[in-house]
Amino acid sequence: MSESVSDADAPEASTRSFQATVNADAIQTAVDLVAALLDECHLSFDEDGVRMWGMDPATVASVDLTLERAAFDDYEATGVRSGVDLSRLGDVVGMADRGQSVHLALDHETRTLEIRFGGLEYALALIDPETIRRPPDRPSENFDFEGGVVADADDFDWAVRAADMVSDHLALGIDAEEDAFFVEAEGDTDDVSLVLTADDLVEVRSAEVRSLFSLDYLSVIGRAMPSDLDVDLRLGTEQPVAIEYEFADEAGSVAYFVAPRISRQ
Amino acid sequence: MSESVSDADAPEASTRSFQATVNADAIQTAVDLVAALLDECHLSFDEDGVRMWGMDPATVASVDLTLERAAFDDYEATGVRSGVDLSRLGDVVGMADRGQSVHLALDHETRTLEIRFGGLEYALALIDPETIRRPPDRPSENFDFEGGVVADADDFDWAVRAADMVSDHLALGIDAEEDAFFVEAEGDTDDVSLVLTADDLVEVRSAEVRSLFSLDYLSVIGRAMPSDLDVDLRLGTEQPVAIEYEFADEAGSVAYFVAPRISRQ
Amino acid sequence: MSESVSDADAPEASTRSFQATVNADAIQTAVDLVAALLDECHLSFDEDGVRMWGMDPATVASVDLTLERAAFDDYEATGVRSGVDLSRLGDVVGMADRGQSVHLALDHETRTLEIRFGGLEYALALIDPETIRRPPDRPSENFDFEGGVVADADDFDWAVRAADMVSDHLALGIDAEEDAFFVEAEGDTDDVSLVLTADDLVEVRSAEVRSLFSLDYLSVIGRAMPSDLDVDLRLGTEQPVAIEYEFADEAGSVAYFVAPRISRQ
Repeated sequence: MSESVSDADAPEASTRSFQATVNADAIQTAVDLVAALLDECHLSFDEDGVRMWGMDPATVASVDLTLERAAFDDYEATGVRSGVDLSRLGDVVGMADRGQSVHLALDHETRTLEIRFGGLEYALALIDPETIRRPPDRPSENFDFEGGVVADADDFDWAVRAADMVSDHLALGIDAEEDAFFVEAEGDTDDVSLVLTADDLVEVRSAEVRSLFSLDYLSVIGRAMPSDLDVDLRLGTEQPVAIEYEFADEAGSVAYFVAPRISRQ
Repeated sequence: MSESVSDADAPEASTRSFQATVNADAIQTAVDLVAALLDECHLSFDEDGVRMWGMDPATVASVDLTLERAAFDDYEATGVRSGVDLSRLGDVVGMADRGQSVHLALDHETRTLEIRFGGLEYALALIDPETIRRPPDRPSENFDFEGGVVADADDFDWAVRAADMVSDHLALGIDAEEDAFFVEAEGDTDDVSLVLTADDLVEVRSAEVRSLFSLDYLSVIGRAMPSDLDVDLRLGTEQPVAIEYEFADEAGSVAYFVAPRISRQ
Repeated sequence: MSESVSDADAPEASTRSFQATVNADAIQTAVDLVAALLDECHLSFDEDGVRMWGMDPATVASVDLTLERAAFDDYEATGVRSGVDLSRLGDVVGMADRGQSVHLALDHETRTLEIRFGGLEYALALIDPETIRRPPDRPSENFDFEGGVVADADDFDWAVRAADMVSDHLALGIDAEEDAFFVEAEGDTDDVSLVLTADDLVEVRSAEVRSLFSLDYLSVIGRAMPSDLDVDLRLGTEQPVAIEYEFADEAGSVAYFVAPRISRQ
């Protein structure tokens, strides 16, 4: 099967369809969050909402984003699965003004996504999803996340930027005795650490955990994170980190998984 | 004749003179609008005002700008014709604060334009106008502009930027039946179009017209356009487009002409 | 002696110490003012305050900055002398929010400066001061500054930026007859000058003086200068210029010395 719009569960192709209206802010945020990690992603439209997901070329990090039906007006979809170039999609929706209504419609025949707002009509050619790297299904079930914290997104981004000053990797962990989340980076000359105690955090699920990650991935994920929201981090020892939060008044949710680096200790 | 200040209609050179005071905003805008297209331009000072004009090196686009006597205080000029480097002129007037008075005076002897404001005095060497490409006289009389629209400048810039996402050229035209102005661009993968109906426009002079243009020119003209003004577009079929508007409280006016590309249809 | 923390006047090393708390704005400004000219500088902590100083690699310009004890809370120091990388120090203190308290402490054992704010702890490796170029002691006593002016810092920066449009050097001087400070630059095609009379200046110490300087140095010094303060310029003929001002509510002071270029007149 090599088509840019394929059928999720193979009823008659002629019945596959999608059209909906969405606030420009919600779709712009959604595209930015996925584009932080990927150039192209899988895209599905079904009864529950729109999903965008994929894995980076080095297979270190994956992202899975859902914009629920509740984020849209006039939502109509029967299971459609396709792929999209995130740079072009981001350019188009980026032309919309804050709060403007963006109308999306799938043209199954031409395999394009029609994007309309303010007199503008953009026909975006979709991509055959078979050509896009596919992340493992349900990655979180394969990992052993013993601990976790819920932190302010700005604190997380700030810690990652601090680590980026001295090194190309950082450790994330929890000090179970102190109920504290820590970020540590050791550079050739300088070291940096950030400790957030229970008072600084929304939630701590204590466990003695620590893993090392490449800053290449955490930096772009941190920078893309909207302000003024809580981010949930699930952590283990020599395990991936799951970075999850909601956006668009809780109608959107995103989960990143980043594989650990082998610790040099 | 190879002088950087020449005499428009050749009375005694010693009587050639120019001096005037102008609001920084007006001269900054004027220079920006011409510099969008040209590095150097023709410059004349005469009884009616200051004129800056020229043609781009590829002879695809021309600009002709007038800042009328009404834009100046203490205006004194006897027909002088010269040439100027727009990058240097733009740098100097760009140093003035919003609303500051900028005094201009021609030093005929040294062939410099003296620019003074806030204690600063800048002596700008003028350029021999004979070395600067000259556009055809009165270009608009040579073309067959059957139709036209008056639109919001921001809408025009927005349409051009949208076209720029998918292609390096765009079509401008009028759908006579619908009284609608359209912008269309076809890319290798994606297409974009913008339709502005009579309700979205200030004026429509309907005629069935359509021409293709290079985005290189329309992009820089669109970006240089000040906000909150109406732009008049005159259009034909396989004809140039004339892009005209007023600025500086109607004391300034500019006209761009851009030649069409050969349509591939 | 080749240690990154050395003892200013050689009592027992174990007694050498420094710790203090400072407002983020004050330390950020201090670092920016020195980093404008230098990559690394000398650093001392003693009873009177913190001093940062050095000379640029071409030995054309020097800077000497003091942040007095009054700028700090909980200040404790016994004469310590070391060196610091200004880029890394600037990155760390730049992470602090406006008005945030930044805690500094010297770890004599590890020769690091510990910088703490908002849960972040950064261990900055200090540099052996013996490896850093040392400016001449008390440079101002060696020069013949016959005249001087006190001007608005924005006017000084503005004049330097104007000169930068036409040339790579500029003359600074005083016209004793007119009690006026002047800045002049002659380019290949254009000339620029700025004259500030006694009315435009805070103070004039008149003398017929004029020296030529490289814009490389004056540009970076001008750009780094905070707004809304008065700058004192001491001038001679074919002499250096001393550029001095206070910041951080007068708890900080900085002096730049820039050597003259040989005048081509």
